[in-house]
Amino acid sequence: MHEIRLTPKTEIDARIRHLQAQLAEEGVDAALIIHHTNMFYYSGTSQSGHLLIPRQGEPLLMVRRSFGRARAESPLAQILDVQSLKLLPALLAEYGCASERVGLELDLLPVNLYHRYLGLFPNTEFVDISMLTRRQRMIKSPYEIELLEASAAVLDAVFAKVPAWLHAGMPELELASRFEAGMRQRGFGGGARMRSFNQDFFMGNVHAGKSAAVPSFFDGPVGGPGTSPAGNPQGAGWGCLQRNEPVYIDYASCIDGYIADETRMFCVGRMPEDMRAAYEAALAVEAAVLARARPGVLWEELYQRALEVVADTGLGDFFMGPGPDRVRFVGHGVGLELDELPVLAPKLRQPLEAGMVFALEPTFVFPGGAVGIENTHLVEATGIRTLTRAPREIVCVS
Amino acid sequence: MHEIRLTPKTEIDARIRHLQAQLAEEGVDAALIIHHTNMFYYSGTSQSGHLLIPRQGEPLLMVRRSFGRARAESPLAQILDVQSLKLLPALLAEYGCASERVGLELDLLPVNLYHRYLGLFPNTEFVDISMLTRRQRMIKSPYEIELLEASAAVLDAVFAKVPAWLHAGMPELELASRFEAGMRQRGFGGGARMRSFNQDFFMGNVHAGKSAAVPSFFDGPVGGPGTSPAGNPQGAGWGCLQRNEPVYIDYASCIDGYIADETRMFCVGRMPEDMRAAYEAALAVEAAVLARARPGVLWEELYQRALEVVADTGLGDFFMGPGPDRVRFVGHGVGLELDELPVLAPKLRQPLEAGMVFALEPTFVFPGGAVGIENTHLVEATGIRTLTRAPREIVCVS
Repeated sequence: MHEIRLTPKTEIDARIRHLQAQLAEEGVDAALIIHHTNMFYYSGTSQSGHLLIPRQGEPLLMVRRSFGRARAESPLAQILDVQSLKLLPALLAEYGCASERVGLELDLLPVNLYHRYLGLFPNTEFVDISMLTRRQRMIKSPYEIELLEASAAVLDAVFAKVPAWLHAGMPELELASRFEAGMRQRGFGGGARMRSFNQDFFMGNVHAGKSAAVPSFFDGPVGGPGTSPAGNPQGAGWGCLQRNEPVYIDYASCIDGYIADETRMFCVGRMPEDMRAAYEAALAVEAAVLARARPGVLWEELYQRALEVVADTGLGDFFMGPGPDRVRFVGHGVGLELDELPVLAPKLRQPLEAGMVFALEPTFVFPGGAVGIENTHLVEATGIRTLTRAPREIVCVS
Repeated sequence: MHEIRLTPKTEIDARIRHLQAQLAEEGVDAALIIHHTNMFYYSGTSQSGHLLIPRQGEPLLMVRRSFGRARAESPLAQILDVQSLKLLPALLAEYGCASERVGLELDLLPVNLYHRYLGLFPNTEFVDISMLTRRQRMIKSPYEIELLEASAAVLDAVFAKVPAWLHAGMPELELASRFEAGMRQRGFGGGARMRSFNQDFFMGNVHAGKSAAVPSFFDGPVGGPGTSPAGNPQGAGWGCLQRNEPVYIDYASCIDGYIADETRMFCVGRMPEDMRAAYEAALAVEAAVLARARPGVLWEELYQRALEVVADTGLGDFFMGPGPDRVRFVGHGVGLELDELPVLAPKLRQPLEAGMVFALEPTFVFPGGAVGIENTHLVEATGIRTLTRAPREIVCVS
């Protein structure tokens, strides 16, 4: 029986103190947190409502739905049942938080809702604190690293099941459904959250051969047809596994809220030699980037290091996506969201720091299929610790 | 082999003409569509980019990613590869659309992105057209009704598999994973879209006994624990099916983009008499509401009719949710999104119209479990046609 993990009070307290210090530094009087991801991060519960974190003093969690659930899950001392937005100004004043400069998550707050806040708080200046919270969440605590390791272990466990499932003629969708069921039974809530607007949620990539070369809206090296132009038009499509072509499986687990990301290659029959060579190139890129990665190295340096290795292989035209739809990064942070910081991409001159966790995914996409490797890595003071641990060898079944 | 369904040009043309007439009526010069749902509805493809629909003339689809995919899927004549937001003002001017009053989807457009548009178009007045598009999409065309029927048939087919799976001690998550795999193999892309901010995506409710009474942020009669307070804290949890308690299964399919919604009751052993009586009450509510439903009847009248029937049963305290977390509606529109119009709720004095499709879900939630019925219904000129068709009887297995 899985234990429900409630975020410890010490963890929540530390997160709030850190944010308060950031608010003070930025001259922001209070943060008004609304979106589920940050509400969970700072309160331990994910409800409809508002979490007010003043620059000093106790946070106040105001819950519309569900108040009972919030009280059961959050270690915060001040939790109120607040059913109307209109009560907010009086409440904030009562709690000594009639602030003049209030931070909101303007990277995803919808305009209509923002206009309601402007009307309710005519004397308040609202500022964007989304990058501030994203930068805080990019450094993981030991508690979070433990959860990320457990999430990575779920991916490893399901990847270990894949060889027994594979057979020629198997629909991509059947393989996808089995992988997803494997994660679900181990605690996957369904879909990994993305913060970016219009990126929706990620259900993974399961592609046999040319299906992996179908481009999509999705900001990853592999898009895929999905089941329809509508709905979630990305990932596994209606194709079937043929013999002697690459089977590319990329999944993001989300266990107790924390996301790990892993890609492995499979084949029914023999992997074509050119695909095998490209896969060796992807492994070489991964090894070169990881050898360079340590605290203090700039994010863009790791991207450039990847490009250097790719240039030597002559496969540059196929790196990180199909033709014009390739992406300009080689890795991305993971945590409560799939698109966290750091991003290993050009022009990002920020340094790696201990506690960052990123997925590194060197991938080559050819008209006949994609090959690549992806693992989730923790930056430690002395170097890199890889959290996903499935064997890297291509698995061929007969 | 499933055929990929591309939206016919006649369908797209009719939708655009309808929107153009609405824009003219509202005095809006053009709509600038950004979000996936409306982009798909008006263009037949779901990409990152912008769809400009002027009040008169041809629409212009400007695609950042993937241009190739957009050209393969959309019947629109004017599709451009546009990689930077900064190119928009010049392009719009060139196409004779340097408009003065432009509609945006302000119900979900993030503030930061909105501020970029304000900067790029200093002389443009932006207005909200989200309700206008939601009202258009609430009336389904014959083509859309065909897709909704196919989506409902997938739910029916998977519900028909459930009795063979059930056994005492079965984890909720295993049952959920099998249902989801059944939909996935029939074309489910994973998760039903919701438009409301912070409602994320819906993965269904699978609850044995008291698990159904756990409240959540989710705006439905049943919340559920989910697998964790984080991630997607709603739906199936870590419990197992016990003998002689209600098993409540509510899923929303999404096939070729269209969502149907259906709930059925199951039991291992014997359903307790009080639960069986409550289920009969739910069926009576459904029958009474459907008997009243026809074009011209107000949305709130159907809600009131449900309450009248519930009042006679003495079960009012348990209707539509657990205690303070009950919801104030009895049905909701479905289509490309799970939370479409109409909403059968108090104070909504708009009439039913032919072509509307709604899910009606009378549900009672007790501390020991939930019982309810949900079907997806089409409003026709002469009355109601129900699209979901699984037998309504409680299925008990030994």
